[in-house]
Amino acid sequence: MSNIVDEVNKFREERDWNQFHNPKDLAISVSLEASELVENFQWKSSEEALLEKQQNIKEELADVLIYSLMLASDLGLDYQEIIREKLCLNRQRYPVTKSKGIKKKYTEL
Amino acid sequence: MSNIVDEVNKFREERDWNQFHNPKDLAISVSLEASELVENFQWKSSEEALLEKQQNIKEELADVLIYSLMLASDLGLDYQEIIREKLCLNRQRYPVTKSKGIKKKYTEL
Amino acid sequence: MSNIVDEVNKFREERDWNQFHNPKDLAISVSLEASELVENFQWKSSEEALLEKQQNIKEELADVLIYSLMLASDLGLDYQEIIREKLCLNRQRYPVTKSKGIKKKYTEL
Amino acid sequence: MSNIVDEVNKFREERDWNQFHNPKDLAISVSLEASELVENFQWKSSEEALLEKQQNIKEELADVLIYSLMLASDLGLDYQEIIREKLCLNRQRYPVTKSKGIKKKYTEL
Repeated sequence: MSNIVDEVNKFREERDWNQFHNPKDLAISVSLEASELVENFQWKSSEEALLEKQQNIKEELADVLIYSLMLASDLGLDYQEIIREKLCLNRQRYPVTKSKGIKKKYTEL
Repeated sequence: MSNIVDEVNKFREERDWNQFHNPKDLAISVSLEASELVENFQWKSSEEALLEKQQNIKEELADVLIYSLMLASDLGLDYQEIIREKLCLNRQRYPVTKSKGIKKKYTEL
Repeated sequence: MSNIVDEVNKFREERDWNQFHNPKDLAISVSLEASELVENFQWKSSEEALLEKQQNIKEELADVLIYSLMLASDLGLDYQEIIREKLCLNRQRYPVTKSKGIKKKYTEL
Repeated sequence: MSNIVDEVNKFREERDWNQFHNPKDLAISVSLEASELVENFQWKSSEEALLEKQQNIKEELADVLIYSLMLASDLGLDYQEIIREKLCLNRQRYPVTKSKGIKKKYTEL
């Protein structure tokens, strides 16, 4: 288990917040933080958003990661391992020869 | 830079997908994957969802993490560092003495 | 075209906001307001949320509707007509005999 | 109460789905459908999305509206009335003289 996960878990344990953290509400929280991340880009191009909102983008992205690590941890999952497993699955779904430079979904390839 | 970030970046570079990955669309993708994660819990308790949808929950959570790491990388941010910075900010906003066992937002504490 | 759509459109025309309202950003706005609606239910049961947050739930739901009507209007769609068309499609996908009291997706029926 | 609300409610009553429709899960459903709407615009400009995905955009927008009308109905709210109330509030927050042609949030005006 990575050290960063321990730091995230320590934060909530110190505050006794685990009692609120059921998987459904943690998944909702990941999604809410992701929306707050997107909000920085509302009515803007990427360039305008980065110029005006860089600090907030960084903070909301961190929040997405924090809740994601908490959820993975509560489900007994190593976050690096599930990333590697998904990349492995994606390599099969999107073979380089078929998907290079193409933004189609694997079901349409 | 952590090794897992290199693996994520290698996946898209091999497919020449960086050309599509502007920060606005990456943020949108983080949010869309977070919604697919939540979809596993729709009309269900956490327990029912984990019983019926564990594999899919794992995959969608991995997708949230993959897009988050890509976005952090494209913005020149170390994902562990922004998590640590945010935890630091949250420790100030939510001092243990004020927030222990309480689920209020810091603006309401 | 329903009268409520005219009221919504009048609001933004008076403010000269149509210039910002491309369909992609309007769709994003519908999604952001939907997340603000969900935020009222974060870490809570429906009952707790309605007790504590009724006014805000009402306002965020109104925001979802306002952006949805704007988007429909900009795409030249009558909102009542697209609802009726979708209900018609759903009646075929979910015949009463097969779906009564069952919360499965039509692809799993 | 508008006729379109009756049609939406009749659809779920015939299928006996009201038993699943607690406000929290309905709010989540509004948000999930909004994300499916946004998905049509992922990695695309508005123009590309409308060219390739017009039918799906129409269907997902209808789904957002259907769940929003169900939620309003279950909370005892008239959807047109809450839109009018929100427009009224927005007129106070965004006076024409201050907000014409300006996309700032009312808290920043």
